[in-house]
Amino acid sequence: MPDYKAPLRDLRFVTDEVLGFHDHYAKLPGAEEATPDMIAAIMEEGAKFAERVLSPLNQVGDQQGCQFKDGEVATPEGFKEAYQQYVDGGWPSLSHDIELGGQGLPESLGMMVTEMVATSNWAWSMYPGLSHGAMNTLDLHGTDEQKQTYLTKLVSGEWTGTMCLTEPHCGTDLGMLKTKALPNEDGSYAITGTKIFISAGEHDMASNIVHIVLARLPDAPQGTKGISLFIVPKFNTTDSGDVGERNHVHCGSIEHKMGIHGNATCVMNFDGAKGFLIGPANKGLNCMFTFMNTARLGTALQGLAHAEWAYQNSLIYAKDRLQMRSLTGPKAPDKAADPIIVHPDVRKMLLTQKAFAEGGRALIHYCSMLVDIVQAGSEGDKDDAETQLSLLTPIAKAFLTETGFEAANHGLQIFGGHGYIADWGMEQNVRDSRISMLYEGTTGIQALDLLGRKVLMSQGATLKVFTKIIHKFCKENSSDKRLAHLMKPLAALNKEWGDITLKVGMKAMKNRDEVGAASVDYCMYSGYVTLAYFWARMALVAQQKLDEGTDEEAFYKAKLQTAKFYFERILPRTKGHVEMLLAGSSSLMEMDEEQFFLR
Amino acid sequence: MPDYKAPLRDLRFVTDEVLGFHDHYAKLPGAEEATPDMIAAIMEEGAKFAERVLSPLNQVGDQQGCQFKDGEVATPEGFKEAYQQYVDGGWPSLSHDIELGGQGLPESLGMMVTEMVATSNWAWSMYPGLSHGAMNTLDLHGTDEQKQTYLTKLVSGEWTGTMCLTEPHCGTDLGMLKTKALPNEDGSYAITGTKIFISAGEHDMASNIVHIVLARLPDAPQGTKGISLFIVPKFNTTDSGDVGERNHVHCGSIEHKMGIHGNATCVMNFDGAKGFLIGPANKGLNCMFTFMNTARLGTALQGLAHAEWAYQNSLIYAKDRLQMRSLTGPKAPDKAADPIIVHPDVRKMLLTQKAFAEGGRALIHYCSMLVDIVQAGSEGDKDDAETQLSLLTPIAKAFLTETGFEAANHGLQIFGGHGYIADWGMEQNVRDSRISMLYEGTTGIQALDLLGRKVLMSQGATLKVFTKIIHKFCKENSSDKRLAHLMKPLAALNKEWGDITLKVGMKAMKNRDEVGAASVDYCMYSGYVTLAYFWARMALVAQQKLDEGTDEEAFYKAKLQTAKFYFERILPRTKGHVEMLLAGSSSLMEMDEEQFFLR
Repeated sequence: MPDYKAPLRDLRFVTDEVLGFHDHYAKLPGAEEATPDMIAAIMEEGAKFAERVLSPLNQVGDQQGCQFKDGEVATPEGFKEAYQQYVDGGWPSLSHDIELGGQGLPESLGMMVTEMVATSNWAWSMYPGLSHGAMNTLDLHGTDEQKQTYLTKLVSGEWTGTMCLTEPHCGTDLGMLKTKALPNEDGSYAITGTKIFISAGEHDMASNIVHIVLARLPDAPQGTKGISLFIVPKFNTTDSGDVGERNHVHCGSIEHKMGIHGNATCVMNFDGAKGFLIGPANKGLNCMFTFMNTARLGTALQGLAHAEWAYQNSLIYAKDRLQMRSLTGPKAPDKAADPIIVHPDVRKMLLTQKAFAEGGRALIHYCSMLVDIVQAGSEGDKDDAETQLSLLTPIAKAFLTETGFEAANHGLQIFGGHGYIADWGMEQNVRDSRISMLYEGTTGIQALDLLGRKVLMSQGATLKVFTKIIHKFCKENSSDKRLAHLMKPLAALNKEWGDITLKVGMKAMKNRDEVGAASVDYCMYSGYVTLAYFWARMALVAQQKLDEGTDEEAFYKAKLQTAKFYFERILPRTKGHVEMLLAGSSSLMEMDEEQFFLR
Repeated sequence: MPDYKAPLRDLRFVTDEVLGFHDHYAKLPGAEEATPDMIAAIMEEGAKFAERVLSPLNQVGDQQGCQFKDGEVATPEGFKEAYQQYVDGGWPSLSHDIELGGQGLPESLGMMVTEMVATSNWAWSMYPGLSHGAMNTLDLHGTDEQKQTYLTKLVSGEWTGTMCLTEPHCGTDLGMLKTKALPNEDGSYAITGTKIFISAGEHDMASNIVHIVLARLPDAPQGTKGISLFIVPKFNTTDSGDVGERNHVHCGSIEHKMGIHGNATCVMNFDGAKGFLIGPANKGLNCMFTFMNTARLGTALQGLAHAEWAYQNSLIYAKDRLQMRSLTGPKAPDKAADPIIVHPDVRKMLLTQKAFAEGGRALIHYCSMLVDIVQAGSEGDKDDAETQLSLLTPIAKAFLTETGFEAANHGLQIFGGHGYIADWGMEQNVRDSRISMLYEGTTGIQALDLLGRKVLMSQGATLKVFTKIIHKFCKENSSDKRLAHLMKPLAALNKEWGDITLKVGMKAMKNRDEVGAASVDYCMYSGYVTLAYFWARMALVAQQKLDEGTDEEAFYKAKLQTAKFYFERILPRTKGHVEMLLAGSSSLMEMDEEQFFLR
């Protein structure tokens, strides 16, 4: 049976020892409650919940899937009960405002718990995950009354939320959306249209569902500038704030999909459903960007989740499964064959998973630290954090989901033919992970956002904020010869990052297609360099701890080993990306459309 | 609805125009029947069968899967009828000996038909595919009587075959297998043991199933040198050669797996089943190698199949789906948005699929031409063909299945969120393709076979046979400036291929783990170079046709474009592989086993 064990030690290493969360919380206004003891207690409880309640439901969720009947969705066995336990444990309210019933802890602490919840059972975690997105949107753009009516119920977990963006003819291109919002006399709106791919759009886990819906007002301009944002509850509320009459929004069907079977992906039909405007008219997409950035980070986390899960389960198998002898002679002569972990290529796959999972963990929690600062930091810090986050979010989303899928596939591969069989769970992990490169903006869209909007539109300024940090880090640590095998190549790559950006930028001034032709290779390149920076930081801390003396020598040495592996066996991939991204757009664009079809 | 259209023009380009099949058949003893007209007629009929009978069953097969009840397997609706049509059409007998009821056509012609059959419906194609493997084994190692009893029935398609190798505790490591064969008094053997992952092990499509089984004789040496090969029919035969009493071999269950749901993957229990030795005692693995090489080429074909299928279906979608405007301004101003084929990154994914599919096609049919020569060529030609084949088989198997999976994933990605939904078939294509990197030897096993057994064990001689061919080709075509952008980098890579082999070889003499540490990168590198050679050959022919004057200008120009794309946007991946494969084994091997677990 596949299983999950919360990597508490590694989480502590990343957040405390590498990223300095204690100092961060000490400086962060409103984070007084987040003391080391409090954090440790929360993490331990979160780990228990993930390991004991959610992990056993992961395979059940895949096998049973969601069932649709007469407009209602039944979630897999145990999902509902697990959600109730989640609510009873106070988990939904962790990082929300105290005046709304929340616990007022920093967003980043919530992310640490979310990592465990998400890794143990991604499909389940999407239900509270979508609520979290809806909560953040309401928090930022809702009126006090809206917050009182809807947000408090979401914070308590009594109700859940969704985000309704996509329509059959438009996913990426939201400017094309058709759902209409006609004003009612009472100040509300009648929402009519069809939304698809609505995760958690209908289910049996909560007494009400708060849909956050993009729609057009009658007089709205065309395209993205004519989109407004609405609250559409499944059940209208009574004056006392309780669940009232059924609203005219219904689930028409659920999708049969490759994975995440435990989460209901719904077609939602709005037939004059009662809705309430959030934020200014026609500014819905701007309001939504807040949600999108959170959601993109949440999806980046999915990459880490599947890499971590794959690593844990294939590691156990690699140590147990006996097959062939080591090329250098038997390592387990008393057994019929050696455990496959002795084989170099199996180790390469394991270390690749480990490097992506642990490196991804550092990147994710670094980003959520930046989110804390954007939400509550001082004005000066805020700008810097916002800039870094705007750069790192598309990198994290694209790179961690691509490498998460790769790591999940290594997991399957390590199991050999058994990996293809459902019982072992490895193929589910691959299927579940595959969605992460699609939703919340495909890898291609993230890459365009990164190169086009973030880097080139700022004339490289956004990138420089981050490359300066890396530059400074390399310089400060250039004297330690033991880390030269990391610091030198990192410094060189960091410089190259700027150089290739300039080159692509020059080309793009003449031909905009150069952006699209370079973007995905550029994004992957950026991801490899970013992770190299975090691996160098982790190696530095590990070296310091070893120098200081520690009773966890093996733990810290493993970090140094993994860093070395990452630099020697992963980072050379940047070579190909550089050459490909500089190759220009002609080989892509010169071919006529009809030529594609001639065979 | 996803669909398949046989790429007859492209198949003709590859086999006739590039590889010179006409000349090849003219020289090949026994291939007199394979005239251009005959080939064209066969291809047309094969295309019809694949397009009209098999393609419509591809999604049905996935959705219904195989059903297991009381030891029997029901295949999906229509599978049985399609198989009967296949038999009625004489397809199983195409490339088998006339004296056994076959049509005596070359193996390579069979492969051309098999490509279409396989691409239209891989899961279905595995039933005749496994028979083909069993037939080849019987043909080479069976006695005349065995051939008369079993092979004729397989050639006619009346019965099907399987290959029973894997056991629960051994897949790669066949030396560990435990299935026993005890001699009976009548000269037959009683076979007892459990085999798993037996594709087509039980089904309702034919009246008998001939299992080819690996087992141990009582006095057999341990390990791989004590394995013998047996025929175990599902039903014993009567004296007249008909189906007689039920043998003691039964399907215990079928696996629930990630994909290829239409093919039954069976646990087969042998309880003293009657079996007959094929070939010499204890030499079963040697006999099996014949099958394995054919099977590996067959699995390499699966990579091509999923790349081709993905390309066809995502190309249509990319032309139809409207989303966003081109970065260089509207291309379809009369429509709500541009078709996504205008976007550079979508084109990059399409061209990647196209380059892998068409390049893979050239490699596959080149290999099957070599198989013809090995089977029927003159003695001198045979050796050379055998050497080339021994090198190219693991490359084709590993590289084409890895890139086939990549291409299938690009297909899913081009569909965006819709790609994740079952209806469109793209996610099935990904799931179905995933097995190809596992069975018939994982990518890691192919890579060890290539670098360890084929290249280094021959001290590079095997490699040289092929690099000389490339060298000669580049030299002969070095004067045409229009192809210099292909010939020059190909010549450089070809030289580098030798250089890195030498370097790895030197390291491996000191430490055998260097082989395992370098092998997968080496194998992928070899694949990229091999495909570059075939793309250069295709470009050369296209250029010649354009020079001669043709009314298919667009077709040949597309070949030149795709070759350019392959060299500019795919081939740079070799850069990373070279650096990684030369990085040595220390970053993999230094980490203690326990360190992997510390988190």
